[in-house]
Amino acid sequence: EYYRAFAAFAGLNMIFAICAAALCALIAPAAAGSGIPEVKAYLNGVDAHSILAPSTLFVKIFGSIFGVSAGFVVGKEGPMVHTGACIANFLGQGGSCKYHLNWKWLRYFKNDRDRRDLITCGAAAGVAAAFCSPIGGVLFALEEAASWWRSALLWRTFFTNAVVAMVVRSLIEFCRSGKCGLFGQGGLIMFEVNSAVPSYNTPDLLAVMLLGVLGGLFGSLYNYLVDKVLRTYSIINERGPAFKVLLVITVSLLTSCCAYGLPWLTNCTSCPVGLENECPTIGRFGNYRSFQCQPGYYNELASLFLNTNDNAIRNLFSSRNKNEFHLSTLFIYFAAIYFLGIVTYGIAVPSGLFIPVILAGASYGRFVGSLLGSISNLDVGLFALLGAASFLGGTMRMTVSLCMILLELTNDLLMLPLVMLVLLISKTVADSFNKGVYDQIVKMKGFPYMEAHAEPYMKQLVARDVCSGPLITFSGVEKVSNILHALRMTGHNGFPVIDEPLFSDAPELCGLVLRSHLLVLLKAKFFANNQVLSGPEFLRMFHAFDFAKPGSGKGLRVEDLDINDDEMEMYVDLHPVTNTSPYTVVETMSLAKAAVLFRKLGLRHLCVIPKTPRRFPIVGILTRHDFMPEHVLGLIPHK
Amino acid sequence: EYYRAFAAFAGLNMIFAICAAALCALIAPAAAGSGIPEVKAYLNGVDAHSILAPSTLFVKIFGSIFGVSAGFVVGKEGPMVHTGACIANFLGQGGSCKYHLNWKWLRYFKNDRDRRDLITCGAAAGVAAAFCSPIGGVLFALEEAASWWRSALLWRTFFTNAVVAMVVRSLIEFCRSGKCGLFGQGGLIMFEVNSAVPSYNTPDLLAVMLLGVLGGLFGSLYNYLVDKVLRTYSIINERGPAFKVLLVITVSLLTSCCAYGLPWLTNCTSCPVGLENECPTIGRFGNYRSFQCQPGYYNELASLFLNTNDNAIRNLFSSRNKNEFHLSTLFIYFAAIYFLGIVTYGIAVPSGLFIPVILAGASYGRFVGSLLGSISNLDVGLFALLGAASFLGGTMRMTVSLCMILLELTNDLLMLPLVMLVLLISKTVADSFNKGVYDQIVKMKGFPYMEAHAEPYMKQLVARDVCSGPLITFSGVEKVSNILHALRMTGHNGFPVIDEPLFSDAPELCGLVLRSHLLVLLKAKFFANNQVLSGPEFLRMFHAFDFAKPGSGKGLRVEDLDINDDEMEMYVDLHPVTNTSPYTVVETMSLAKAAVLFRKLGLRHLCVIPKTPRRFPIVGILTRHDFMPEHVLGLIPHK
Repeated sequence: EYYRAFAAFAGLNMIFAICAAALCALIAPAAAGSGIPEVKAYLNGVDAHSILAPSTLFVKIFGSIFGVSAGFVVGKEGPMVHTGACIANFLGQGGSCKYHLNWKWLRYFKNDRDRRDLITCGAAAGVAAAFCSPIGGVLFALEEAASWWRSALLWRTFFTNAVVAMVVRSLIEFCRSGKCGLFGQGGLIMFEVNSAVPSYNTPDLLAVMLLGVLGGLFGSLYNYLVDKVLRTYSIINERGPAFKVLLVITVSLLTSCCAYGLPWLTNCTSCPVGLENECPTIGRFGNYRSFQCQPGYYNELASLFLNTNDNAIRNLFSSRNKNEFHLSTLFIYFAAIYFLGIVTYGIAVPSGLFIPVILAGASYGRFVGSLLGSISNLDVGLFALLGAASFLGGTMRMTVSLCMILLELTNDLLMLPLVMLVLLISKTVADSFNKGVYDQIVKMKGFPYMEAHAEPYMKQLVARDVCSGPLITFSGVEKVSNILHALRMTGHNGFPVIDEPLFSDAPELCGLVLRSHLLVLLKAKFFANNQVLSGPEFLRMFHAFDFAKPGSGKGLRVEDLDINDDEMEMYVDLHPVTNTSPYTVVETMSLAKAAVLFRKLGLRHLCVIPKTPRRFPIVGILTRHDFMPEHVLGLIPHK
Repeated sequence: EYYRAFAAFAGLNMIFAICAAALCALIAPAAAGSGIPEVKAYLNGVDAHSILAPSTLFVKIFGSIFGVSAGFVVGKEGPMVHTGACIANFLGQGGSCKYHLNWKWLRYFKNDRDRRDLITCGAAAGVAAAFCSPIGGVLFALEEAASWWRSALLWRTFFTNAVVAMVVRSLIEFCRSGKCGLFGQGGLIMFEVNSAVPSYNTPDLLAVMLLGVLGGLFGSLYNYLVDKVLRTYSIINERGPAFKVLLVITVSLLTSCCAYGLPWLTNCTSCPVGLENECPTIGRFGNYRSFQCQPGYYNELASLFLNTNDNAIRNLFSSRNKNEFHLSTLFIYFAAIYFLGIVTYGIAVPSGLFIPVILAGASYGRFVGSLLGSISNLDVGLFALLGAASFLGGTMRMTVSLCMILLELTNDLLMLPLVMLVLLISKTVADSFNKGVYDQIVKMKGFPYMEAHAEPYMKQLVARDVCSGPLITFSGVEKVSNILHALRMTGHNGFPVIDEPLFSDAPELCGLVLRSHLLVLLKAKFFANNQVLSGPEFLRMFHAFDFAKPGSGKGLRVEDLDINDDEMEMYVDLHPVTNTSPYTVVETMSLAKAAVLFRKLGLRHLCVIPKTPRRFPIVGILTRHDFMPEHVLGLIPHK
């Protein structure tokens, strides 16, 4: 009978897992994983392929549903952040041409900054909805997601999240009678702690500090192992969709075995007195799981494993029954979740990191709390909360936003000083080993992420040293064939325009022209037979929106142009589409200083001009890739 | 008997008021007012005289104590923010030479950025201590105080506020037995609301929206009137300390008359049943004030006026006795506090704005709540909280930080969606009339505050248009007399250095040299008889800390130099102290774009270079003052 039950359990899990993996592997590989690193990279200015495409959105939503249903140790929070960002991107690019959904009135977002703002709001809304935590969402967007912060953006995310809060509130109100399944259970406060501990003293503080140190150590080890596992998986995943699905099946089997097998290791525990109605339970809800036990007894590990993640967290945070879980239970659960969390992240399924981290943290927090029960009078439920905080701090390395999310999850304002303390310690300890898990993943995926600060080794170089590649420049009025050749031969997105003696006394830097604008200009065939400036007709030919930033994957390409041989010999005036005052730095500026300028202003191209006069007016162009460590470190002499 | 009581009340108030005013008028005029605008301006880069000096710190602490004791309608929160910033500045400049308190190990803060960070932390700690609101303090520093935000700064303020939270927590623990007077009353949650309103529906939301609109209107009117009154007062205050004290005495008398006289307007109310022990009360603490009433009766207005501000707020937020205050009471109280708040801000006393605004907001919120009692089932105490939120939003125009401060003040997480809604509406309504109160005061005080965004009219000008004044440049190796003349004749803090043909083929921009560095160089008399470069001896003569930023008012001045006539004819090599890669913009760059660069990088000088080659290598220098509306608007053609 038990084997049949296991077969049903593992089989159903596997079907869901295969659905999720198939969606992910075949339709949108970018939807695998948490999605927060991708959003972070996008908001830093990395326009990677399809990370916010409509297909990714679709797979993220349904893949996440299947993945969570399959019983994986994954959360829905990261995917919800990614989903929010994808929806925002979908709106921001004015719908999708491919799927015949177009809205003209959204064209006001056809520029980098407003679209980035919209996507930040989307990410913030994702956190707000995932944790019922509107302020935590704003802070998450500020601390972790966004690279550039403006007060207008604060106001916009706040507005978004106020709307999210109202909508979630109304939906919970609507679902009060239980007609929406598990949704709305527990109201706005998802994991109420209710542990009225009025005071704490030195032993308590020492216990909390111990938790912080443990969280830092476990957290940095977790990040290290996740990184190793991800690198191994990426070798497997590269072999094709079949291997991806196979990997998912393996992990699914492993998870099912753990969830079903481990509860056999514990003996049955007798139900606490006064809870005869609730304990043991075999239904969909409930705290004390019966599993193989007699009536009047419950299985501790089954109460954690064979439950929804939310309920497992509630059980761990609960302070009503201090002895609900024994030390061995908590230890086995912690080890299993820690291990499963590491091997699960990286498979081709949308998988959030918050829930595994909270589960593992809460279990070792409760473990430490039970262990120190004699010297500390803090509650074990509170220890579980602080353990979760410490592990979150140790892996994700956020401060204010985690603090706020935990506060909004648990409504335990009086414990704020302790939560702050534990976060500080765990972050400090973990930071001395490695970087936060999202930063690691961003780096592992190869996104050219610009750090907010310049690295010390950048001071050993000047701007001129890192300008790479041969410089391609255009004249103010350039031959069409030259432009077309340059566009075809290189992938550059910006070209300096030099005014030659016909238009000025000596060669001077006229400005910078963008590839996308050149393509619009060439497409319109606004050519002349000789080198003359285009007059006011230019304004009649084009509108400002012709040069607006297109949606991802919707811009003109060189292959779309159809230019005949006669036109090749004609000239086109680049002045009207040239940015005549690009940001410039002198060639002798320290690379660190140039990096600060580049990053703070959020540039894509930075012109390097000569220090001494009477030379060619531009030395090179710096782009994001020129500041990457791989590139810079190779150029440092004697290193 | 009542007249004698009034004389004692008004007399004591006046003595305290005179103490506060005398301190303020005679020792540190910069300590008057809230202090938040000054901190905000400092963090924007305005090094105004003595705004963070030790004397200001002293007066701010004791003036605030006297001012609050004098019964003025002022808060202690703004002054605490200023106090925190002053302490941070005191530490950051390594103590004070003037008062013989010097710490060498604090020299690491002798640069702009770290000192600014330290002061931001100080301001955040002030908020955290004032409201027992560590996260609110971090967000306040982020949203209102700081102009530049880095993740390192977030982490530092968070750390500071975690320490503040732990210290406040320990002090409250220590004072639990009541041995510290009023301190620690109510624990970490200052104004617990305790109104378990589980649900709200459309009429409730409409009522809340009405509150938001009202808050916006009252708030913008308040800002308008405060501005007018401040301008009037500044005329009076300019006449001298005697006039300042006289103004304070007038306002003190007015306040005493209101607080003592207005309670006579209400009839006595009979005590609620079941509260015979607490009501009426004549002691230091207590909710229901007896005043002139019989035993068994209390005076409603006296319960608000003749109480500490904290207790008055608690009374208004209280939901235990719905009918504690009648409509007429609330209306009179609101009108009086609104009026007194306006006339009190601007007198020569440290005066915070938070408490008056919360009091006025809570009273009209409770008024609206009582009025709409029949159609809304929200609690009057909750209405008072939302009223306070709406008025705070309407005057101060913060969002997340106010939300968080209110949350930490009241521990009412379930009402977060309503608080967010009301803040959004009131801020939106008020923003359509005028700016936030702190921004208004910054502007009125004439601080050259750089806004985060460029104004639209800046697009009509280019960088060259606003460069003001004759440009003074130095050669790479310059005559001492020329330098000294330039330093004496102008107040410029930065001078371009041009390498002339002796050191280069054509005149080229070598860089920018700072006044403070020139003074150090001249003081050391590192001169040569002819135009030669100073070799490696330079490094032996100076240390990096010689050029560190001195504390406010402690730097070298031109008058400190003692240079004889022979030395005047000698030369000094400026190359070692020149910043050889200053940030530059071309003269044709739009002023708006230059303003963004200037503001985002937090510059003090921005070199404007010519667009066309073969001209003098610098056109001018832009400083903060060149971006101020007064200057720019006068230069726009046809305007």
